[in-house]
Amino acid sequence: MAAESRSSPTPLLKDQLDIVIPTIRNLDFLEMWRPFFQQYHLIIVQDGDPSKTIKVPEGFDYELYNRNDINRILGPKASCISFKDSACRCFGYMVSKKKYIYTIDDDCFVAKDPSGKDINALEQHIKNLLSPSTPLFFNTLYDPYREGADFVRGYPFSLRDGAPTAVSHGLWLNIPDYDAPTQLVKPLERNTRYVDAVMTIPKGTLFPMCGMNLAFDRELIGPAMYFGLMGDGQPIGRYDDMWAGWCTKVICDHLGLGVKTGLPYIWHSKASNPFVNLKKEYKGIFWQEELIPFFQQATLSKDCTTVQKCYIELSKQVKAKLGKVDDYFNKLADAMVTWIEAWDELNPAAATSNEASK
Amino acid sequence: MAAESRSSPTPLLKDQLDIVIPTIRNLDFLEMWRPFFQQYHLIIVQDGDPSKTIKVPEGFDYELYNRNDINRILGPKASCISFKDSACRCFGYMVSKKKYIYTIDDDCFVAKDPSGKDINALEQHIKNLLSPSTPLFFNTLYDPYREGADFVRGYPFSLRDGAPTAVSHGLWLNIPDYDAPTQLVKPLERNTRYVDAVMTIPKGTLFPMCGMNLAFDRELIGPAMYFGLMGDGQPIGRYDDMWAGWCTKVICDHLGLGVKTGLPYIWHSKASNPFVNLKKEYKGIFWQEELIPFFQQATLSKDCTTVQKCYIELSKQVKAKLGKVDDYFNKLADAMVTWIEAWDELNPAAATSNEASK
Repeated sequence: MAAESRSSPTPLLKDQLDIVIPTIRNLDFLEMWRPFFQQYHLIIVQDGDPSKTIKVPEGFDYELYNRNDINRILGPKASCISFKDSACRCFGYMVSKKKYIYTIDDDCFVAKDPSGKDINALEQHIKNLLSPSTPLFFNTLYDPYREGADFVRGYPFSLRDGAPTAVSHGLWLNIPDYDAPTQLVKPLERNTRYVDAVMTIPKGTLFPMCGMNLAFDRELIGPAMYFGLMGDGQPIGRYDDMWAGWCTKVICDHLGLGVKTGLPYIWHSKASNPFVNLKKEYKGIFWQEELIPFFQQATLSKDCTTVQKCYIELSKQVKAKLGKVDDYFNKLADAMVTWIEAWDELNPAAATSNEASK
Repeated sequence: MAAESRSSPTPLLKDQLDIVIPTIRNLDFLEMWRPFFQQYHLIIVQDGDPSKTIKVPEGFDYELYNRNDINRILGPKASCISFKDSACRCFGYMVSKKKYIYTIDDDCFVAKDPSGKDINALEQHIKNLLSPSTPLFFNTLYDPYREGADFVRGYPFSLRDGAPTAVSHGLWLNIPDYDAPTQLVKPLERNTRYVDAVMTIPKGTLFPMCGMNLAFDRELIGPAMYFGLMGDGQPIGRYDDMWAGWCTKVICDHLGLGVKTGLPYIWHSKASNPFVNLKKEYKGIFWQEELIPFFQQATLSKDCTTVQKCYIELSKQVKAKLGKVDDYFNKLADAMVTWIEAWDELNPAAATSNEASK
């Protein structure tokens, strides 16, 4: 049982969850996470120079993939995995054989709750994923499945079963996840507010999904968690998780799955360089003005009954409607197809059972 | 300035806000609110026996209306104002001449924040109403206009102006606002969780609006705040605020206005009798299963450019689509029209300027 377990203990899911970490450096940050992560299997995706050795602290169970491994495993389909960008992390989602994924950045440390206690972020994500979501109606007392809470007066009884939860989006204390312009304008702003809530993002509403502290059910939504083409050779960066979030939300809405945000917090230690970020982001700042209406209006046809089918249909809409914004989106639409092909190649059983269950 | 004012003081709006209180008893509860309410004008709507005298503590500036007053002022149109039900409070919204309304139940006391400080609920509502809402895209760090917060990476810049805020829905510590079945099942449940957040309910999402601790901009949305036909002679109770909330949300979405929920908390002292509540609610429990899909699908035509026009159009849809659920909804649809007629009679200037500004 987890150290944090309460009256009703949260299952550890030790053999059902992989932790995916993209990195270019030694993973000393794991020392702080040892009490919470050591029982899990880690999938480390090494970005940048593959000849460099990444040191992992003693006692962790892990597999590590560098660019050479990705090229060897995926062959020509490796083109869909970004290089020199943390978007490469989605390769880890693909090679995992587990039901759940937790992904975290290597500059994220253990945060403390208002009582000063270390927050077991992973345990909270597991709670979030194992309890239903409420995408069809807003509950004003937040998560109705949490101890001490419930559905309030006026909440339709037919909706109280909720929907299966596909995604748990965690937040950050200290350095907030701001874009470059906001970083430049507010260099000293820190997030010190601990909001003790988990909530479902309502159906039809998009949100900015950050990949820093994120968990999801790979069986329910895995193939939609593609982090796109970023970094080396691409005109854009820092939109990898946003892209995945927008695609994922549209598909979750279509398939009747839930997306939660709120707890748990991690401690985000270091702001990235806003000048570097601005260079990566500036095209995205323009493009997102077209992307948001696109995703807000996107609808998927009834025969999209699996995540793969949804994703392929979405890739066609990306090509048809965003290709004219920039040729980059034609490349991205092709990469979305390649991603699904590679996913199904590495996950043949899942691809079949996914079909069969529908 | 309010006692609670911080670095950027919140305007008091002393001459622009009325506090509306429906009651059947002496208003001793105002003693506790004295530091926060004494500077405001109160509109007391006395429910039940008009021959009874309601005592108001010394030093408060108020006007009081009993049933005889309502009948005298509205004549035959008084039929739209409920009797023997706190739904009668909406008469106070109608006779107010101010821009903002705060309404509170007489069993609600001053709550304390986690540091033990008394919460000035009204000041927080004013903050909520005076800062924009974000109905078109979800911000994961909650209210982006609050000190220490902002829009996160991936939030489209074109949406950062937000929308004018029409409604601020506050919450309750201690006795949560549960329906009768939940009260019966969980008689001992208390809300002890202070969630330090204000959020916008996204466009297209409905919520259960509770009238216990509620503020709104009367000029922006007042005519939609009709609390329906409840209580004496009606087949239903305890759905007055829900009805207002669903109508209001559909109209806010149509007009591009925002609805917030979260802070401030009040201390809800006493659970109402669940057996009595069940009797009032049980038809509503069935009906809400039809009402929610109705409101989720309701759309208003482009020429609905004022709240009044929206509300009249909604009343027609209620008659056309809910009349077959129960004849009650035909009566309610007629009362909705009467309400608007009465509103415009008592607010002739507003009715005109509302027209002219569109």
